[in-house]
Amino acid sequence: MLSKNTVKFIKSLQQKKFRKQENSFFVEGAKNVTELLRSEYEITHLLFTKSFEQENISLIKRCGAEKFEVTPKVLESAGSFQSNDAALAVAKIKENRPLKLESSELILALDDVRDPGNLGTIIRIADWYGLKKIICSPQCADIYNPKVLNSSMGSFTRMDYYYTDLELFLQDCGKPIFGTFLGGDNIYDSDLPADGVIVMGNESKGISPEVEKLVTHKLTIPQFGQAESLNVAIATAVICDNFRRAQWK
Amino acid sequence: MLSKNTVKFIKSLQQKKFRKQENSFFVEGAKNVTELLRSEYEITHLLFTKSFEQENISLIKRCGAEKFEVTPKVLESAGSFQSNDAALAVAKIKENRPLKLESSELILALDDVRDPGNLGTIIRIADWYGLKKIICSPQCADIYNPKVLNSSMGSFTRMDYYYTDLELFLQDCGKPIFGTFLGGDNIYDSDLPADGVIVMGNESKGISPEVEKLVTHKLTIPQFGQAESLNVAIATAVICDNFRRAQWK
Repeated sequence: MLSKNTVKFIKSLQQKKFRKQENSFFVEGAKNVTELLRSEYEITHLLFTKSFEQENISLIKRCGAEKFEVTPKVLESAGSFQSNDAALAVAKIKENRPLKLESSELILALDDVRDPGNLGTIIRIADWYGLKKIICSPQCADIYNPKVLNSSMGSFTRMDYYYTDLELFLQDCGKPIFGTFLGGDNIYDSDLPADGVIVMGNESKGISPEVEKLVTHKLTIPQFGQAESLNVAIATAVICDNFRRAQWK
Repeated sequence: MLSKNTVKFIKSLQQKKFRKQENSFFVEGAKNVTELLRSEYEITHLLFTKSFEQENISLIKRCGAEKFEVTPKVLESAGSFQSNDAALAVAKIKENRPLKLESSELILALDDVRDPGNLGTIIRIADWYGLKKIICSPQCADIYNPKVLNSSMGSFTRMDYYYTDLELFLQDCGKPIFGTFLGGDNIYDSDLPADGVIVMGNESKGISPEVEKLVTHKLTIPQFGQAESLNVAIATAVICDNFRRAQWK
């Protein structure tokens, strides 16, 4: 039987303060919950409707969480979705620790990407293009924010994150560092290697001057019309596509 | 002096029904309003703060609309922004009529793109890549929806639109028709010409079977990781980038 206190606990996890305090987060909706069930995250609470249970019986059986069959109404009152006829799961936040980088791999570094929708979309793009690691400056949106998780469409489970001082990280990473700037080298004409850090900047201010100094290769996405800029998630997709294409045989 | 009725009139334009009835729409915020002032749209009402006026004095002088200096509070009560210390403008909707296509140009055709944020972002992307025309199926979001206009970041002023039956349009357009599908030709290995229609589909259902039959070139964006799909605006950016890149000398 799901208690009022558990619903209250789940609701509180919409706020970063309580996520930190409880070391927990939640995801909701069929796609995100099934991806979470397939991942190595430690799930503590699993709420699901009868129909979600029927479609995911073996995934649910394998899960060691406290389990509650509930109505859509309960899912909607506990979570952030207006409508949810599937499931909601609470899991433990992974420890924030340095990531071991491969000798040849592309990773993303986000310099103050604040909008949760953008961060979630960037995670989905990184997953599409087969990237595995995202380094975030401390001012970036929190990846465990429900809006980030929802817009990642389950991709958040396949990515590792490390929130850290970006300058220190870049100084020590030992990889070429790419960033987009007005007046950088045209990305169509540049040698884009299979190894490197792609830095993406803040929604309105772009890459900070301190991080810019550490960028070893300045790139530009060619502009054919008159829009002044591209949204940071759109630019991330175009850059990842160009990097992968450059290695395409 | 701005009357209560005018504020009420502007507020009503958040709804499609009233936009249609009044043949009018509004945009808000410094970026969108300055772009509108530079465009050929017929502006009927211009509301601005003292500071916006000081920064845009010549643009405002040239504009033949009824003009009102107002406080941010009035802008916020008339428009959809929580905070607006710049301006708001009401303009006439352009007539929906067939667009004359150049013998060689890339255009977009949107098959049931419903999310206003996606449509606005697609307009901004099309503008970045120098496209000028977007054909929309009747079920697409309304380009004069404030959310579409806001996420276009002013690019909506540089694009022509035609809402029409997409099947009839594509049958008669006389151009190669491109669409993305699972199992299409890899976009990295395809000949992408300077002339054609790029069809983008619905957020959840993709391109409809009726439109699919008319696609002459099926394309795929290669997937390197495990995300199941890309958001329609992200996919539009990657495809436009690949088309422009193919023509790049």
